[in-house]
Amino acid sequence: MSRLVGKVLVAQGGGPTPVINQSIVGVALEARKFSQVTSIYGAVHGVRGIIEENFVDLTRETTHNLQQVADTPSSGLLSTRDKPDEEYCARMFKVMQAHDIRYFFYVGGNDSSDTVRIVNEQAKAANYELRAIHIPKTIDNDLMENDHCPGFGSAACYVAQAFMGVNLDNRALQGVYVGVVMGRHAGFLTASSSLARKYVDDGPHLIYVPERHFIVENFLADVDRVYKKHGLCTIAVSEGISDADGVPMISRLMGEERDSHGNLQLSGTGALGDLLVQEIKKGLGIKRVRSDTFGYLQRCFMGVRSERDAHEAREVGEKAVQYAMWDNVDGSVVIRRPVLNYSVDYELVPLEAVAGKTRHMPDDFINAEGNGVTEAFHHYCRPLLGSALPESHRLRAPSVPKILHK
Amino acid sequence: MSRLVGKVLVAQGGGPTPVINQSIVGVALEARKFSQVTSIYGAVHGVRGIIEENFVDLTRETTHNLQQVADTPSSGLLSTRDKPDEEYCARMFKVMQAHDIRYFFYVGGNDSSDTVRIVNEQAKAANYELRAIHIPKTIDNDLMENDHCPGFGSAACYVAQAFMGVNLDNRALQGVYVGVVMGRHAGFLTASSSLARKYVDDGPHLIYVPERHFIVENFLADVDRVYKKHGLCTIAVSEGISDADGVPMISRLMGEERDSHGNLQLSGTGALGDLLVQEIKKGLGIKRVRSDTFGYLQRCFMGVRSERDAHEAREVGEKAVQYAMWDNVDGSVVIRRPVLNYSVDYELVPLEAVAGKTRHMPDDFINAEGNGVTEAFHHYCRPLLGSALPESHRLRAPSVPKILHK
Repeated sequence: MSRLVGKVLVAQGGGPTPVINQSIVGVALEARKFSQVTSIYGAVHGVRGIIEENFVDLTRETTHNLQQVADTPSSGLLSTRDKPDEEYCARMFKVMQAHDIRYFFYVGGNDSSDTVRIVNEQAKAANYELRAIHIPKTIDNDLMENDHCPGFGSAACYVAQAFMGVNLDNRALQGVYVGVVMGRHAGFLTASSSLARKYVDDGPHLIYVPERHFIVENFLADVDRVYKKHGLCTIAVSEGISDADGVPMISRLMGEERDSHGNLQLSGTGALGDLLVQEIKKGLGIKRVRSDTFGYLQRCFMGVRSERDAHEAREVGEKAVQYAMWDNVDGSVVIRRPVLNYSVDYELVPLEAVAGKTRHMPDDFINAEGNGVTEAFHHYCRPLLGSALPESHRLRAPSVPKILHK
Repeated sequence: MSRLVGKVLVAQGGGPTPVINQSIVGVALEARKFSQVTSIYGAVHGVRGIIEENFVDLTRETTHNLQQVADTPSSGLLSTRDKPDEEYCARMFKVMQAHDIRYFFYVGGNDSSDTVRIVNEQAKAANYELRAIHIPKTIDNDLMENDHCPGFGSAACYVAQAFMGVNLDNRALQGVYVGVVMGRHAGFLTASSSLARKYVDDGPHLIYVPERHFIVENFLADVDRVYKKHGLCTIAVSEGISDADGVPMISRLMGEERDSHGNLQLSGTGALGDLLVQEIKKGLGIKRVRSDTFGYLQRCFMGVRSERDAHEAREVGEKAVQYAMWDNVDGSVVIRRPVLNYSVDYELVPLEAVAGKTRHMPDDFINAEGNGVTEAFHHYCRPLLGSALPESHRLRAPSVPKILHK
């Protein structure tokens, strides 16, 4: 095997996660071990940094600071929402040639994977030797071929811990609570709220994911039943829930009139939660109904993460470099789980297997009523949150006999 | 001093905090040390539990479980929004007499303090020996006489850590971000977002508190200036901001038309954030503008707390019992700070000094422009968040010289 000598380029794209820097640092530290690597560049603001030649030299970064950045959430190299087409990729490829980039590692979701695929094809067509590897990340957990994705476990910790707090809060003051969680097409993150349950009457009592149609009448009947049973009801919904025609609930509930008046955007707002609150108040006559939209809080919250997720995010970065250097191949690194509880292994699959595709919750993770998750999901998800999940406790003191109200 | 023999009753009212159980447990464990205490009862759901005679016997609770509950956020004895009047208090007093309650400890805010005051007066009028002590708690930090209030430091940790994450997220993808923080009349919690700043360009760049009038034109000019300077802008606003006439911004921005159409409640919704987003988009033409309303997430989030806050919440409970047992007096426990950085001391003040009053941010905590906080606030607030606050880190790698775009 002839050694391909040249520079490494690493970048990250799309929404940040609490552990995405682990993957960048995994690449940077592992690549330093190979003598054919002449320098390790990082692109600032993802693919945009590549076409603008906005690089930093990670070879001139200390190990200590790389470690500190790895432990910091969000994209240390900054990110972009640019989705390159063929022409954009051609410009990227030109810059890579100019800088003698021979190894390209891109950390991102399914769009980023597609970018790596296009650049890789252009390099082949130009007979330019380039190893191009996609490294997975997404809090949505929706990449094909992966058992789970780096970033998901930590975001799931945030969602579970938030719902633990909501359980305690809602039990103290009693009402109906709706928490709106990220996830336009895949319900994994919303489903992770179920990990907040400890006591038999803990919430979330109802969980609605985009994989099932959202029927307002059924929803109200569900809330009514739980509220009558427990005197309170805690609900988790994905921002992406839609009706039987595929119309997002946020558009449907707003109605055309509201749309033209209010001109609110469809995501990144508290609108869906507020609209569901209105439906419950109107339909069931319950007074104390509250809603929170988790929004950006769930994506990079400082101080909450799964250490298992952090380790795996580091490992996919290291493995990407090892595949490129030892095996001289291109592809997308994926996480497998040979043992349910719990071990992982890594593989390299063709870029086409991941690029541009979306993975949904398997049917056996969602209950028959479409308003909750199954034990199978619980077994799948629990190990991903690591060992640091806190636990709530209740008083067990016995009741005192009444004197006046006997 | 003759010893007053009888039962202890402890309860908690109003919104929960991450450390309110510490105070309950402080009372329960300390009261066990005094032989004149025949039993320690806890009222379930605060004052409502008292009129309903809904008590649990904390004397029959294990020390280990009390400790576990102390470390759990929210109200382990559950809470209530009932605000007792004279007649309500008279019913409470009747139940206390029936159960031979001789020591009453109520953990809560300024409304709860007023309840203790009324019950105490009724006991005096009836010549019934009762020690009644108010124990402070509120994430709003707005109790008179107190340097700060138990619960605030932990909620401030959540707000600071959330804004640290927002800083990282908004730096990666760049736009304008509005975070709406709890606080109808006092801006302390919103101001604590300033503790998220580490690097010179970190946010929040603008902070608006209810202690200053909110002028939309000034707000837009502020956002414009910051956005032009940094290419992004991170903003913290209190839910209670109002205009020069004292009209809450949420009502003003909604307008009468929206009010009649939308019928949205004024708090516990994402409406204020969404409306400010609309103002920025409309007034400044910036595309990526996002908002989160921290809502209930900031009040009991599991796993985020200030250990200093937790210790002090425990101590105010213990001190309350000590004042009642050793000094045989009534009043409200307050926290003093004899040394700025940092030590506390406790005092008992008359209930009237705290009851029904609201403390606001001192003028020297708010900057002249009314869009930020001062160093004085920073020095005041930092120690309250304890030692567990995480820290973000950035890459320091040097830029690479351009080849194509020289």
